[in-house]
Amino acid sequence: MKVTLIKYTPEPERAVAMSARLCYSAAGAEELAKTMSEAQVDKLIEKLFTMGHLSTFEHVSFTFAIEGVSRVLTHQLVRHRIASYSQQSQRYVAEHGFEYIMPPSVANKPEAKVKYEALMRQIQQTYDELVALDVHQEDARYVLGNATETKIVVTMNARSLLHFFEKRCCLRAQWEIRNLANAMLTAVQAVAPRLFAKAGPTCVTGGYCTEGDLSCGRVNRDKPL
Amino acid sequence: MKVTLIKYTPEPERAVAMSARLCYSAAGAEELAKTMSEAQVDKLIEKLFTMGHLSTFEHVSFTFAIEGVSRVLTHQLVRHRIASYSQQSQRYVAEHGFEYIMPPSVANKPEAKVKYEALMRQIQQTYDELVALDVHQEDARYVLGNATETKIVVTMNARSLLHFFEKRCCLRAQWEIRNLANAMLTAVQAVAPRLFAKAGPTCVTGGYCTEGDLSCGRVNRDKPL
Amino acid sequence: MKVTLIKYTPEPERAVAMSARLCYSAAGAEELAKTMSEAQVDKLIEKLFTMGHLSTFEHVSFTFAIEGVSRVLTHQLVRHRIASYSQQSQRYVAEHGFEYIMPPSVANKPEAKVKYEALMRQIQQTYDELVALDVHQEDARYVLGNATETKIVVTMNARSLLHFFEKRCCLRAQWEIRNLANAMLTAVQAVAPRLFAKAGPTCVTGGYCTEGDLSCGRVNRDKPL
Amino acid sequence: MKVTLIKYTPEPERAVAMSARLCYSAAGAEELAKTMSEAQVDKLIEKLFTMGHLSTFEHVSFTFAIEGVSRVLTHQLVRHRIASYSQQSQRYVAEHGFEYIMPPSVANKPEAKVKYEALMRQIQQTYDELVALDVHQEDARYVLGNATETKIVVTMNARSLLHFFEKRCCLRAQWEIRNLANAMLTAVQAVAPRLFAKAGPTCVTGGYCTEGDLSCGRVNRDKPL
Repeated sequence: MKVTLIKYTPEPERAVAMSARLCYSAAGAEELAKTMSEAQVDKLIEKLFTMGHLSTFEHVSFTFAIEGVSRVLTHQLVRHRIASYSQQSQRYVAEHGFEYIMPPSVANKPEAKVKYEALMRQIQQTYDELVALDVHQEDARYVLGNATETKIVVTMNARSLLHFFEKRCCLRAQWEIRNLANAMLTAVQAVAPRLFAKAGPTCVTGGYCTEGDLSCGRVNRDKPL
Repeated sequence: MKVTLIKYTPEPERAVAMSARLCYSAAGAEELAKTMSEAQVDKLIEKLFTMGHLSTFEHVSFTFAIEGVSRVLTHQLVRHRIASYSQQSQRYVAEHGFEYIMPPSVANKPEAKVKYEALMRQIQQTYDELVALDVHQEDARYVLGNATETKIVVTMNARSLLHFFEKRCCLRAQWEIRNLANAMLTAVQAVAPRLFAKAGPTCVTGGYCTEGDLSCGRVNRDKPL
Repeated sequence: MKVTLIKYTPEPERAVAMSARLCYSAAGAEELAKTMSEAQVDKLIEKLFTMGHLSTFEHVSFTFAIEGVSRVLTHQLVRHRIASYSQQSQRYVAEHGFEYIMPPSVANKPEAKVKYEALMRQIQQTYDELVALDVHQEDARYVLGNATETKIVVTMNARSLLHFFEKRCCLRAQWEIRNLANAMLTAVQAVAPRLFAKAGPTCVTGGYCTEGDLSCGRVNRDKPL
Repeated sequence: MKVTLIKYTPEPERAVAMSARLCYSAAGAEELAKTMSEAQVDKLIEKLFTMGHLSTFEHVSFTFAIEGVSRVLTHQLVRHRIASYSQQSQRYVAEHGFEYIMPPSVANKPEAKVKYEALMRQIQQTYDELVALDVHQEDARYVLGNATETKIVVTMNARSLLHFFEKRCCLRAQWEIRNLANAMLTAVQAVAPRLFAKAGPTCVTGGYCTEGDLSCGRVNRDKPL
């Protein structure tokens, strides 16, 4: 998996803080942007986060190029609707010589690994044969596995990212999208540490768990009644 | 493919017309709902459609149960973000004995069909073997094909449906999601004929085509300059 | 203020429960809809709510006709973006003889009330004079007060409503939109009691408060760390 | 009115083009971003626009600080839901000494102007008196006019902006929000001329009009049947 933060709104923390200040001030936005100190930005973002006033976090967006992930992952990913996606198309891009993702639980079991690899070769062969029989690649791809590697560009604003990290950094998320979420979190924390200082699953950010019987048990406390 | 309209807002046409009238009237909503004749509803909906005042079409929603479709289709479907989805999970539902979709272009070529079916059997066998080797089904499913049958419940409001039909009833859409879109269109036209009287691709609704070089050629006229 | 629930998805609780069951079952949606008992619906909805799996709550929508509210209220209301609105237009509807809303804090102070009413009469007079001077009503309305009565039709799905109730039933919300939220909550609880059994501000639903220094003090506990 | 583009995604045109190329290419996003020439970016954006493949335009966002506008304008503005807003609050910011907007149709009629200004003074006086009588400013503001000046920070992605320009640069939009839309369009064309080369109302971009009887008459041609 390769996750690259390719674009983001410049000075994201200042942009959020300035937008928030505007709501409670008679001064204009530009004036506010110029005169806020780093310490003021810091303090204001912490307050916004604590009070759950996250609409101001929407003013900054982050765009990621993601490669080396399966279509299992992207089918889960694109369910997050407050986001924008551009995905490599299996209708227009031929999959002769496709790469594939192998779950660690398979890779770590030699017997499983052998069967998995053999099936991937078989899938490749059948795909190639179907195309050779003049089946268009958009139909031939019906035989491709969920494991097939894909590429996708994703843009989310900071508020949507916080929600994404809450759901997908959780140990109950599947390993692949959790790995993606963690990589995205690391990338945004590098450029906007204050915005994402407390990002993550509710056990980390709130000390409680909503997963019920399926909880990983990291915290014992349910969401407070 | 089985498409069932399981729920929808009662009296959808009256609901849209009443909401629209409210914008231009000093009277209240209830009063408007009661006093509008069928002919007035009819005329008003046509006018709203022609003028592109489609926000009023959002007040009514339609929920479909969709079965017998592939994960190719659902991966395309869930890209429509102004909609709500509940999909059968391959994490929680075991796929021993999965059904699969076969594209007509494969079904109609005996040689292709044989290869396709053989591969599906091979996928089933490998999936079962992986699970037998204690690979959790959420990881075993990486070998499942795009062709694997899935079920999904979808809710869209009428405006979002009009957009969906414009894009997915087009001959440039892939056959499977186009079949779905046509089945959904038939279902909503049966209960709300006025709302969907002019639904479909732009060649049908506007007499022009935006597909450029990829156009099916049904109309020659580009979008007017 | 007059709040009327004019339309909603039939059998909303069964619709939610059925959609949720589909995700975890090999059976189809229609079959599930038929065979679930009331007790099963009840139990499943409670579980979905507790675990925060609220996407299934999106399949059901509720449409309200709202009258006798100010434009203060509607300017706050339409900030909720996962919703659909049709509002009485001040561009197209003349405001000769407009009604207005008076805050209780004004109504309860005779001296304030007198001044408020006098100003409203003055506004009406100036509006009428501007129109008489051939100022179009869409410009004449610049003099109308925030207090001016308006009408609006609103549709939200159950998930969006839960969010709306969390924010707007809170004592920190302004009295007018809080009154609206409470009236909407009463209306939906009458037809879908299970879906909205635990709706309301976080002090009621979770026993904690995120309002910080601005908290009403009903609960002392902050959001758990 | 003062409109300032305060933040935007760097290299917006390249970001859009690169995301689009990914869909149709086996190469990765970073590689594509580096190797595309200006001419390729140019040509691709034009093609995307013509074919209506605008989802790639969502990857870039633009943030504006807007001052010197009325609450008539912001009530219209915030109806655009695929956008993010932070607005100066009349609950938390006192309006002693508020500024106000005057429509040109009033400003150009001396008799109307005098009445308008007199009423604004009267409103200010009553607002101040109510606050002096211990009416909280969140309630005192019920007397403030639609004309009252406000400030707002708005973020939209390029696709949402194109829709906004289509609706609000139209001569049928009210003068104030049309002035805003034109100022925003000028600002984004300066930094992303290719993305917004064909932005505007449908009479400009498509040569047709959907306003029916209310059309300004700039073009006679209806939307093609």
